[in-house]
Amino acid sequence: MAKIATLITDQFEDVEYTDPAEAFKKEGHEVVTIEKEAGNSVTGKQGEATVTIDQSIDNANPSDFDALFIPGGFSPDLLRGDERFVKFAKAFMDDKKPVLTICHGPQLLITAKSLEGRKATGFKSIKVDMEYAGAEYHDKEVVVCGNQLVTSRTPDDLPAFIRESLKLI
Amino acid sequence: MAKIATLITDQFEDVEYTDPAEAFKKEGHEVVTIEKEAGNSVTGKQGEATVTIDQSIDNANPSDFDALFIPGGFSPDLLRGDERFVKFAKAFMDDKKPVLTICHGPQLLITAKSLEGRKATGFKSIKVDMEYAGAEYHDKEVVVCGNQLVTSRTPDDLPAFIRESLKLI
Repeated sequence: MAKIATLITDQFEDVEYTDPAEAFKKEGHEVVTIEKEAGNSVTGKQGEATVTIDQSIDNANPSDFDALFIPGGFSPDLLRGDERFVKFAKAFMDDKKPVLTICHGPQLLITAKSLEGRKATGFKSIKVDMEYAGAEYHDKEVVVCGNQLVTSRTPDDLPAFIRESLKLI
Repeated sequence: MAKIATLITDQFEDVEYTDPAEAFKKEGHEVVTIEKEAGNSVTGKQGEATVTIDQSIDNANPSDFDALFIPGGFSPDLLRGDERFVKFAKAFMDDKKPVLTICHGPQLLITAKSLEGRKATGFKSIKVDMEYAGAEYHDKEVVVCGNQLVTSRTPDDLPAFIRESLKLI
């Protein structure tokens, strides 16, 4: 079973965390939420979900995890202003471990400069950002690149995103 | 006196609209807020400012305005998901009219592909996006490029942003 690092902070897109997290746990995987401080509560932008942080980014080591999950909303943009989260995400891309991300999640990978040459999708507002960052953008419900990177666009894509993510972890 | 088109929607950074708008009006300029529908109310992300929209983007013609102002926050990312706002912003860049933008505002210019070769700054989380988009990023309180484009990083930069914006309009 996989131990999945999840980078999340306030203003995440509620169902983009809750639905995959529930599906991953149901299959026996462990979802570990990571933000600035363990014990922090972070709240989704719809106000529907509150998540307690399991681990501080300061104590989180990518080598302790099998995969990375980045839900969307404004959370990824808030996280990428802090270099610790960018470095953490980059390590998974460099090590070719599964990276599962939806909506605005690829913003963290842009800042990590980890999208160059990758096939991916994301929320329409970041399409041009992703292309400038060297990604080959596909307007599809889910894109799987190199048996490693799973990306989707919006909450409507969650069934496909969860299906392809579960295949990789 | 200048007629300043202002692209704004919910989750704008409150003082990044209110402070410049007040300063522009005090000097006799006209600030026209533009979003989807005239009469809409949009609210800042701090919940401190509510702005009534003057004009619908559908009726807004760039040639009716002397300058463009884009406050930051999450408003620019929400707007650039709609091609009408991207085209509107692009017209000011193409016509070399003053474009005044702070924080996340340059996101609209990235999607418009209008930052290539320009000197600019912006909020730290979009630095890499701006560089990928061809901008020469400077970590300074205000950057003025080509006597046209005024950019700043955060609310702390507002005095410099307002000072340089007023010189151009």
